[in-house]
Amino acid sequence: FEGGSASYTPPVPDEPVTVSVGIFIDQITNVDQKSENFGAVATLRLEWHDPALAYDKSPNQISKVMEPAKFVEIAADQNLLVPFFVVQNQQSKRWIHQAIVVIRPDGLVRYFEKSSLTLQAPYFNFLKYPFDTQTFYYEISSVYPSEYVRFVSMEDASGLGELLGEEEWILSDARMLKTQINGISGLQTDQVALQFLGSRHVTYYVIRVFIPMLILITVSWSLFFLDEYRKRIEIAGANLLTFVAFNWAISADLPKLGYLTFLDFILQWMFVVTGGVIVINVLLRKMKATGKEGLAHKLDNYIIKWVYPLGYLAIVAFGVTRYLIEL
Amino acid sequence: FEGGSASYTPPVPDEPVTVSVGIFIDQITNVDQKSENFGAVATLRLEWHDPALAYDKSPNQISKVMEPAKFVEIAADQNLLVPFFVVQNQQSKRWIHQAIVVIRPDGLVRYFEKSSLTLQAPYFNFLKYPFDTQTFYYEISSVYPSEYVRFVSMEDASGLGELLGEEEWILSDARMLKTQINGISGLQTDQVALQFLGSRHVTYYVIRVFIPMLILITVSWSLFFLDEYRKRIEIAGANLLTFVAFNWAISADLPKLGYLTFLDFILQWMFVVTGGVIVINVLLRKMKATGKEGLAHKLDNYIIKWVYPLGYLAIVAFGVTRYLIEL
Amino acid sequence: FEGGSASYTPPVPDEPVTVSVGIFIDQITNVDQKSENFGAVATLRLEWHDPALAYDKSPNQISKVMEPAKFVEIAADQNLLVPFFVVQNQQSKRWIHQAIVVIRPDGLVRYFEKSSLTLQAPYFNFLKYPFDTQTFYYEISSVYPSEYVRFVSMEDASGLGELLGEEEWILSDARMLKTQINGISGLQTDQVALQFLGSRHVTYYVIRVFIPMLILITVSWSLFFLDEYRKRIEIAGANLLTFVAFNWAISADLPKLGYLTFLDFILQWMFVVTGGVIVINVLLRKMKATGKEGLAHKLDNYIIKWVYPLGYLAIVAFGVTRYLIEL
Amino acid sequence: FEGGSASYTPPVPDEPVTVSVGIFIDQITNVDQKSENFGAVATLRLEWHDPALAYDKSPNQISKVMEPAKFVEIAADQNLLVPFFVVQNQQSKRWIHQAIVVIRPDGLVRYFEKSSLTLQAPYFNFLKYPFDTQTFYYEISSVYPSEYVRFVSMEDASGLGELLGEEEWILSDARMLKTQINGISGLQTDQVALQFLGSRHVTYYVIRVFIPMLILITVSWSLFFLDEYRKRIEIAGANLLTFVAFNWAISADLPKLGYLTFLDFILQWMFVVTGGVIVINVLLRKMKATGKEGLAHKLDNYIIKWVYPLGYLAIVAFGVTRYLIEL
Amino acid sequence: FEGGSASYTPPVPDEPVTVSVGIFIDQITNVDQKSENFGAVATLRLEWHDPALAYDKSPNQISKVMEPAKFVEIAADQNLLVPFFVVQNQQSKRWIHQAIVVIRPDGLVRYFEKSSLTLQAPYFNFLKYPFDTQTFYYEISSVYPSEYVRFVSMEDASGLGELLGEEEWILSDARMLKTQINGISGLQTDQVALQFLGSRHVTYYVIRVFIPMLILITVSWSLFFLDEYRKRIEIAGANLLTFVAFNWAISADLPKLGYLTFLDFILQWMFVVTGGVIVINVLLRKMKATGKEGLAHKLDNYIIKWVYPLGYLAIVAFGVTRYLIEL
Repeated sequence: FEGGSASYTPPVPDEPVTVSVGIFIDQITNVDQKSENFGAVATLRLEWHDPALAYDKSPNQISKVMEPAKFVEIAADQNLLVPFFVVQNQQSKRWIHQAIVVIRPDGLVRYFEKSSLTLQAPYFNFLKYPFDTQTFYYEISSVYPSEYVRFVSMEDASGLGELLGEEEWILSDARMLKTQINGISGLQTDQVALQFLGSRHVTYYVIRVFIPMLILITVSWSLFFLDEYRKRIEIAGANLLTFVAFNWAISADLPKLGYLTFLDFILQWMFVVTGGVIVINVLLRKMKATGKEGLAHKLDNYIIKWVYPLGYLAIVAFGVTRYLIEL
Repeated sequence: FEGGSASYTPPVPDEPVTVSVGIFIDQITNVDQKSENFGAVATLRLEWHDPALAYDKSPNQISKVMEPAKFVEIAADQNLLVPFFVVQNQQSKRWIHQAIVVIRPDGLVRYFEKSSLTLQAPYFNFLKYPFDTQTFYYEISSVYPSEYVRFVSMEDASGLGELLGEEEWILSDARMLKTQINGISGLQTDQVALQFLGSRHVTYYVIRVFIPMLILITVSWSLFFLDEYRKRIEIAGANLLTFVAFNWAISADLPKLGYLTFLDFILQWMFVVTGGVIVINVLLRKMKATGKEGLAHKLDNYIIKWVYPLGYLAIVAFGVTRYLIEL
Repeated sequence: FEGGSASYTPPVPDEPVTVSVGIFIDQITNVDQKSENFGAVATLRLEWHDPALAYDKSPNQISKVMEPAKFVEIAADQNLLVPFFVVQNQQSKRWIHQAIVVIRPDGLVRYFEKSSLTLQAPYFNFLKYPFDTQTFYYEISSVYPSEYVRFVSMEDASGLGELLGEEEWILSDARMLKTQINGISGLQTDQVALQFLGSRHVTYYVIRVFIPMLILITVSWSLFFLDEYRKRIEIAGANLLTFVAFNWAISADLPKLGYLTFLDFILQWMFVVTGGVIVINVLLRKMKATGKEGLAHKLDNYIIKWVYPLGYLAIVAFGVTRYLIEL
Repeated sequence: FEGGSASYTPPVPDEPVTVSVGIFIDQITNVDQKSENFGAVATLRLEWHDPALAYDKSPNQISKVMEPAKFVEIAADQNLLVPFFVVQNQQSKRWIHQAIVVIRPDGLVRYFEKSSLTLQAPYFNFLKYPFDTQTFYYEISSVYPSEYVRFVSMEDASGLGELLGEEEWILSDARMLKTQINGISGLQTDQVALQFLGSRHVTYYVIRVFIPMLILITVSWSLFFLDEYRKRIEIAGANLLTFVAFNWAISADLPKLGYLTFLDFILQWMFVVTGGVIVINVLLRKMKATGKEGLAHKLDNYIIKWVYPLGYLAIVAFGVTRYLIEL
Repeated sequence: FEGGSASYTPPVPDEPVTVSVGIFIDQITNVDQKSENFGAVATLRLEWHDPALAYDKSPNQISKVMEPAKFVEIAADQNLLVPFFVVQNQQSKRWIHQAIVVIRPDGLVRYFEKSSLTLQAPYFNFLKYPFDTQTFYYEISSVYPSEYVRFVSMEDASGLGELLGEEEWILSDARMLKTQINGISGLQTDQVALQFLGSRHVTYYVIRVFIPMLILITVSWSLFFLDEYRKRIEIAGANLLTFVAFNWAISADLPKLGYLTFLDFILQWMFVVTGGVIVINVLLRKMKATGKEGLAHKLDNYIIKWVYPLGYLAIVAFGVTRYLIEL
């Protein structure tokens, strides 16, 4: 309900007016995880009963149809309560594509609106990234407090469309939630919200991050068997710079978080291990230079064959346990 | 039809009002495949017959002309049905450049609108990328259910313009489709859509991706004939990093998909093969170091001359068969 | 003419109303060659004569002044024809900074509008890039068909301003064109367009692309005289990667075209030649290794001194002839 | 208060009207430190008492409810003072999601508004970056001078929400400030502002900048013990280029400042030290070449073991003292 | 003055109405040197005297207050002249935050407006970049020609605010200029403009560009004393690629200019010199190879010690003289 310029004194209803609210998301235009919001095109439906609006209809007429601004004007003339609402987590202007009010002869009022807007999604938690599941909401709250207006959810007019047009997230588990919040008037106010979950395409991260990293590490490992400390240092040095680049490229996709994600954890330790490999090889080379070649060789054999691969495995295992498995 | 502030009770038509709808796309302002939408400037035409609007015209007058808001007002005064519509896959606000209603003396009403907007294109499938063909729609659906308003497509006022101003896509095969959907009122509603197909300029991908890759691989291959395992490893290592860069550059153009595109498939396997080349050369070098130089040389000769080029060919052949050729 | 909510039956003019149209571009806010559009701030002037609007003016009064919406209202009351127009290649909303209608006592109506908008520029042809010249239009077409309204161009109120604020393009040769198009009404309709040409600052491309490339090639060439096949291969390899980077950087400025521009042609062949240089050096080295050092040396001398520089020259000459010189 | 088209002569109040102002920020949509602004969704509340608006209410009626434009109209009819306000540091259009005026029978007027806008944040000081704390404001000032309208802050309706949706900044310490400014009328005018502080997640900078730098430096240092001047120069050269890349990457996040931040200071000196390391090694190598190998070795030993690590420590210590510790 | 829908015949004033105009810039939201525009939030004040608007005021009333649209309506009713204006170099829509008209009993009309917009800044000249000083304007011109409306500048209500929120530019020297231009009506029209100057923080360019370049060149120079032609060539080659990267990074900040800036000049010549260094070393090496080692050494000594450093100095000196010092 926007527009309309009217002053009126709505009656205190004997009991709160019950308004059924349906929230159906037709399109998800984008999900911006850095700004923590998402864009949606949604069809909103509000339905309530007002005996004062009942009328006689001749059989050859369709129900009364009007634009919302006109309805507000009529309601003001008759001092009727209009269930104004706010999209609680709205972030941008709401562009209304089409809105219409239909009044049935028995006084049932139906408000339909198709609109697009940006909604806040403040519940992002990137700890398990990229294996995280996020929760999104489309929250509609009443302008009048619960004392006057009660919201119930219209299940059959709510949910997610078939063609959301969002490729990067797998969206599912839509359901309606009813709560009470501290509303715009400062009083207890009814709110209805469409909640849904989103997870990422794991394939993407496997292809772009995990496989390239696995190949780089495996190839580096195979090179270590050529037994030259010097060359190993060069290779590890190149890997070090590659990991810095990976680190930056991945962080560009996320907000500047105050914690390590799963992927950060893995990359950070790969980085530390690769740095360690260089230091160890410097030490081994030093030992060789100071005549302890035998011991160096023995240690080296042990490190390459066991410590290096098992070290990486241990990092991954620890990361998976700590970040991904909930106990 | 936007604007207009009126309440009215349209009559139940004896039979549904038939509205001819024309959708002509003048310009494609952009195609955003990551967000899966496109921008368009289009001329919409709606045409229907309402005997109640017929009037006497003196020969020295042009037909009645008015702005849509005025027409809605007149229709409300006379309780006439106005065929409101929604652009079903509209994503942004629709900016109307010019809109006008013309009423002929015989009651034929013509609505013209030129407007720009962003439309959802949720049917993107990147499997054959960059040899994919995508389908786009401009969908107009009625606000009234099919019971009251029927849409038919106006073929001669529909299609794609000559100067779309879209360089990256080859757009063609425009045709009008008529369907019924679950409309804004929740009932069966008529919809008319302009469908068209888009494919990419293959030349671009040949120049920017396939030729550079072919030259890099050919040059690397020629270098392998210099018979030095050490050097080969260095070259293959450089290629490995180059392929990672290619991989990232190409993925930046696409959404984060949950599957491999044709191009991904090729790049991914090039990457694996290049990693394999390094491992093999490490093994050959090891063999040489442990005195099996003869065998190493023999194997090497076989691998360079046959396995390497045929391996790449096999990848490309398999990719083409699996991704591009439909059986 | 926007706003205004009125219904009216304009008279059929005895002969078409002649409207003088002036298009003066004050600012070019940007030229987006990837999206093929440009932003402009323009002053539009429409001028026509309507005897029905003549009035008596006392000597101490200025001519009648009003906002366009008011004028439309007055015209509707008197059933006068208002020459509505559409900016034919408009792409965005047109923001009107200021618009005013002045009516002189003799019935001369003057409409002034200053507005900003984005205009389509679909005639881009990048074949000669960066030595290309592009054509831009600001097209105004009538809403009424030619039968009722005729447009003539007002030369002295049309053109390009002195301070367009566009640094990257040299804009010139503005002239008014008059044509007839298939208008919004579906009938033959008058259109007036301001055409102008744009070319690029060649200096920019010389400094950023051609001189760096020339220096890289010259330096590489000088290094080839050091007679080492191995080193040459390394240098050529580095050049290869540099050319890939150049290729990508340049293509980022252009849409994904279906053809080679002049610059693409040069870069593509530089790339092929550099790849060829590597293969030749591998062959020469192989010859040397197999004892044909004399022949290798002879061939090499010939190739470095003549084939290499003349090859590059031939590519440039062929590119210039095929792309830039029109026969 | 927007909209409303009315002319009126408000009475001179006997004493200034006292308006309670509440500013509650529901969402922070983004913080743009380069442009020095932030986006917010806020609930504004204004409350004042106007005896002229008192009315009799039957017990079965809710208080009077109206849209702001209607209220302005009523106030103009009765020549009442409307406490218009300006968001002093507003930078973009303010999109009003919902606004409503409620008048209680005793003449208490309550204005509620939920709106989104971009606000200027001109107090950014990056000296301690990334350990800086910034101050943000949401300033509301009266249109009428203090003589007529006085603002007091409504503490319980002001503050920061629980779910601001801002991941990169830790926002806290919200409090209301009351000041007088030179208002839109050019006179002393009341202003109420919500002030809050923001600091960064230090973890982010530790992970992305400090740990990678520490590892690079430590690894380089370990390599220096291999005693080869030549190799050291190469390593230091690579570090030099890495530091240039770091420098650019970090400066891309900040505006082009006229001073060095803490992080700039550290990076700048790392750069200078790394350059110095190369020059020193060139000198040592020269000494070795001219027969002073013993002295070179002695100096080198001293430099690597003490000067290099202590030099870095000294830079950090000096940076921390000068930039971060306030005396 | 926007909105308002009125037709009226303003009187010819006996002498032009004198309107005082004040332009006070509160915020600079951004300066976009590539698009040559800047964003501003400004307070505009217009003040003139119209005896026809004088009225009697009872002592207990504030002056008449109204919204601009209402004022235009009143003026139209009374056929009064309203000094409409255009922001001459406006580029975007002007968003009005708050606008109000106050009429004093003696007929003094005051128009206040706080608004945000994007303004063209077409006078950019980058020749001395980054040591350039640019000129910016906020131009307000009358809609009526000078014959009817004269503008004078209101000095005390004009200027730049204390907290512009612009970090990258040092803005100063604000002053009001009065000129006559060819206005929207095509006649001589009064214009008032706020002019101010902007210069850059030199520190930024010293830290990010000049110091890194100086260190790279100094370090390279020191390496040349190690007397190896081969190594020198490699170092100079790496520098060559670094300078290309610098060149591109700097040009990304500027529009694609048709001339060399000071910084371009320096970088371009560094590039040429570095290329020359490689060629010279190739020649020296060739001389050495052909037995002229003594001469090569002598020449080399001379070149390294004198030509190289003095060459760079000469470039800088020439650049400074030609670009920065005005004679």
